Amino acid sequence: MNDKYCFGVDVGGTTVKLGVFNTDGDLLEKWEIPTVTEDGGKKILPDIARSILAKMDEREMERDEVAGVGIGAPGPVDSEGTIYGAVNLGWQTFSLKKELQILLNLPVEAGNDANVAALGEMWQGGARGYDNVVLVTLGTGVGGGIITGGKILPGATGSGGEIGHFHINDEETIPCNCGNKGCLEQYVSATGIVRLAKEKLAHQSRPSTLERIPLSELSAKDVWDAVKAGDPLAMEVAEDFGWYLGKALAGVACVVNPEVFVIGGGVSRAGDIIIDLVQKNYKKYAFHGCRGALFTLAELGNDAGIYGAARLVLD
Amino acid sequence: MNDKYCFGVDVGGTTVKLGVFNTDGDLLEKWEIPTVTEDGGKKILPDIARSILAKMDEREMERDEVAGVGIGAPGPVDSEGTIYGAVNLGWQTFSLKKELQILLNLPVEAGNDANVAALGEMWQGGARGYDNVVLVTLGTGVGGGIITGGKILPGATGSGGEIGHFHINDEETIPCNCGNKGCLEQYVSATGIVRLAKEKLAHQSRPSTLERIPLSELSAKDVWDAVKAGDPLAMEVAEDFGWYLGKALAGVACVVNPEVFVIGGGVSRAGDIIIDLVQKNYKKYAFHGCRGALFTLAELGNDAGIYGAARLVLD
Repeated sequence: MNDKYCFGVDVGGTTVKLGVFNTDGDLLEKWEIPTVTEDGGKKILPDIARSILAKMDEREMERDEVAGVGIGAPGPVDSEGTIYGAVNLGWQTFSLKKELQILLNLPVEAGNDANVAALGEMWQGGARGYDNVVLVTLGTGVGGGIITGGKILPGATGSGGEIGHFHINDEETIPCNCGNKGCLEQYVSATGIVRLAKEKLAHQSRPSTLERIPLSELSAKDVWDAVKAGDPLAMEVAEDFGWYLGKALAGVACVVNPEVFVIGGGVSRAGDIIIDLVQKNYKKYAFHGCRGALFTLAELGNDAGIYGAARLVLD
Repeated sequence: MNDKYCFGVDVGGTTVKLGVFNTDGDLLEKWEIPTVTEDGGKKILPDIARSILAKMDEREMERDEVAGVGIGAPGPVDSEGTIYGAVNLGWQTFSLKKELQILLNLPVEAGNDANVAALGEMWQGGARGYDNVVLVTLGTGVGGGIITGGKILPGATGSGGEIGHFHINDEETIPCNCGNKGCLEQYVSATGIVRLAKEKLAHQSRPSTLERIPLSELSAKDVWDAVKAGDPLAMEVAEDFGWYLGKALAGVACVVNPEVFVIGGGVSRAGDIIIDLVQKNYKKYAFHGCRGALFTLAELGNDAGIYGAARLVLD
């Protein structure tokens, strides 16, 4: 083997992120192309293949210098590289790995985007040096990715690590996007945090700096800013957030017993306060054999997907 | 390789179970020796080694016909075969794998007993043909073992699959053996089922056939017998049991997404009624991508440990 390079591809609903790495894990260059979702997303893989082959030409790379191309996509992907549909892309079930391999004539590996991001954080991010890792991505929704023994845990049908749909509240009356009621995502996503704040604002007469913001414009960032400014109502929301997430991660821990939990996604920009709130509740509910797990913030931001995808082909 | 045989060892607090298998998975013979726990359990491994070497002599086995010896023990065991103490045996932390290997001069693999039992059920029991499996053992306590991609998931420090300590009830006031409050084990173990029944008997004036049994003698089997006879109070206990376990396994599923849940241990002798009660609640709380998981009863009983231990050395 003479491998010097590998490519990582992260397919999103509007853009595809691509990166070329050396096999030591340095990102040499990254770029984006639009995701063309028309016609069942049938142009997406040919567009990706064309972009990678053009980059190889531009950089005068030989085929035998490229270890392969890893790809992460927003749908369940099993250990064989089959994707079981991706609603945002218009994709049905097919072998993502094989189709891209045919287009590129290079080794290809495929995974779910959240799982792949966890692998990226393990390789070059917040979980560097560990090989039993849980990544929780707190964005508009809640994603999760699990690494055990240095490998992605895809599960039987690619739904491994779907932590956002961990049932956490028996009393919930409003359904989650998934159809169930009381999923973790309903409380600790950016949307969930805003919902918790709105409920408190509606049912409490106590003054809060959050009242100055029109309800329709209230964001999770506003809530965290108010927490940092010491607003008591916002601090209650933060405590609830920490309780839901800490308790859920204690449940996750007694299943997979990770060394480290990595917290990523837009909400994690609030910083270390997140870690403190979650870890406090985690320690309360975790089985003693798992209580020593570390908590850290994600480091790769939106690049975690391309890092992890590239890492897929290096095993 | 000329391997024809492998040995499986299951170390318990009072007896060590041993089995010799052919590499196709047929149990050729099983036997037991006492577990000598005095002096920090230092005689246990030499006793096991002597028993195996004697069996090899008796059966005129050559060393190169033996693929190896697998051992399961009641404590957390990591992927390297280090056991982090076993209270019931008097053991501290040491390399179970290496110490037994030195005594036998044969390949040795080691695992936690519950995880190893899951591997046994995958190899020759209720989960034959699957490689993403969760075993739940409902005995005096609740044990769990997780298989992903055909391999045990030990976790970072051997606490993978500690499903008995999944937090399931925020209202609990009585502590679990582990020190936390509201662990799954407090409701669905044999002890937990009896506790649920006693609480209902104490707080309800409704007649129940269970009242004929002295409270101090009430067993989980009595409760299931009453369920099958249609006793309404016992049926309520059974519904609660199914709710706790189904809800917990839905949480487990969104983490590891198994193909099949195998229910074992003494409580599982109640039979298919257990499956019905658990699956009904599982389907209510499970993420849709995991909802199709199968439920089955364990088939190997107390032999699951020796089967799984033997299987450890065949990878």
